[in-house]
Amino acid sequence: MTIEDRVEALERRVRALEDHVAILNLLARYGPTVDAGASAAAAALFTGSGAYDVGGMWRADGREALTALFDGETHQSLIRTGSAHVTTAPAIEVDGDTARAVAHSFVLLRAEDGYRVWRASANHWRLHRTPQGWRIAERYNRELDGSAESRAILARAVTEGA
Amino acid sequence: MTIEDRVEALERRVRALEDHVAILNLLARYGPTVDAGASAAAAALFTGSGAYDVGGMWRADGREALTALFDGETHQSLIRTGSAHVTTAPAIEVDGDTARAVAHSFVLLRAEDGYRVWRASANHWRLHRTPQGWRIAERYNRELDGSAESRAILARAVTEGA
Amino acid sequence: MTIEDRVEALERRVRALEDHVAILNLLARYGPTVDAGASAAAAALFTGSGAYDVGGMWRADGREALTALFDGETHQSLIRTGSAHVTTAPAIEVDGDTARAVAHSFVLLRAEDGYRVWRASANHWRLHRTPQGWRIAERYNRELDGSAESRAILARAVTEGA
Repeated sequence: MTIEDRVEALERRVRALEDHVAILNLLARYGPTVDAGASAAAAALFTGSGAYDVGGMWRADGREALTALFDGETHQSLIRTGSAHVTTAPAIEVDGDTARAVAHSFVLLRAEDGYRVWRASANHWRLHRTPQGWRIAERYNRELDGSAESRAILARAVTEGA
Repeated sequence: MTIEDRVEALERRVRALEDHVAILNLLARYGPTVDAGASAAAAALFTGSGAYDVGGMWRADGREALTALFDGETHQSLIRTGSAHVTTAPAIEVDGDTARAVAHSFVLLRAEDGYRVWRASANHWRLHRTPQGWRIAERYNRELDGSAESRAILARAVTEGA
Repeated sequence: MTIEDRVEALERRVRALEDHVAILNLLARYGPTVDAGASAAAAALFTGSGAYDVGGMWRADGREALTALFDGETHQSLIRTGSAHVTTAPAIEVDGDTARAVAHSFVLLRAEDGYRVWRASANHWRLHRTPQGWRIAERYNRELDGSAESRAILARAVTEGA
């Protein structure tokens, strides 16, 4: 291998690592952003046509719908009570300009004495590289209710390797 | 330093970063995989002779025993109820072809109203580089019951630097 | 671009990745270390003059005060009961020899039946590169009580990009 070949290989590997770290940051930023009530900034973590799909309940398509979702009474009531939207450490698989991630998420909600776990879910993200950096093209979320559907989301961690 | 020396140093550093990211992915994949009910895939995250040791309760040695564990009634009952096996963001220390990691883990279980935290534990992993990538050689898990033993697991984050 | 330019660019990018991974490890080590009761080791994750500020409640300045905090009856009582101080996957922004991070944190505490979420908080860290590696210069923590102040901490994930 020539020195040029080795440098080119390194450039490819470093770019893959940068992609992984950028996606870790993107997903880590979601919870603090929605709990801060920064609805437009939370929507901007998605692509222009990005979607958030909560299986069996609702689907928000595009940043306007996402902003409206975070501005809506359900979400605003959670953050007024005191909420932590936690995304657990994700498994990420980058493939060129797209990527996939799988993780759990849960919401802690302030209660009389401490906090309660209001909701826990399985999540699958499709991500795109954009000129502004990595963004969420689709987040699919399904409550962990023991159903075959919620387990199918998690199974993507196995079958897709992410 | 010659350009060859600098490229060689970069190759070493990039490999260390790739190892870290691969182990992050490996540990992140565990929870979604066991909650999906993909028992054989969960066992395949361990080396052929990999072990899962829950101090004071049980120990599963090798992939057959691990698969049987995840197929067993205790685990199956959790995932039918609706469970999230969460591994928190781990501290990882790579040393050549072996590595160590330390993290908390906990299990969320669906209840009448939201979810409850069924169990919370201290964890220490020994990991091996294999031809198929990084795998868990041993996971040692101990419930956080205030005992000296559970704290000793966590203390490995201090003494071993992981 | 000459080969020297490309190698120099790679060295810069690899250093940025190493910084990110080192900070992931630093923040991941905090919980296991304080739950292990290793007070001096936990204080050593901060710079010499490092501070832990729990808005509206108390502030510990410097390693001596931090060690005393972890040795104090409040913290010791938590770990005797059985506690998990969890820091969620953080968003990290490195800028030369300083960095910022944002994440949630929560404390699980052993109860009659399983564990309860004793506290959940918003966190912002300022970090410094020291001769011994990355250390916490200041951790600012505020309970998620729905107040404007707790949301302002999280908003730093948005405004500062971390």
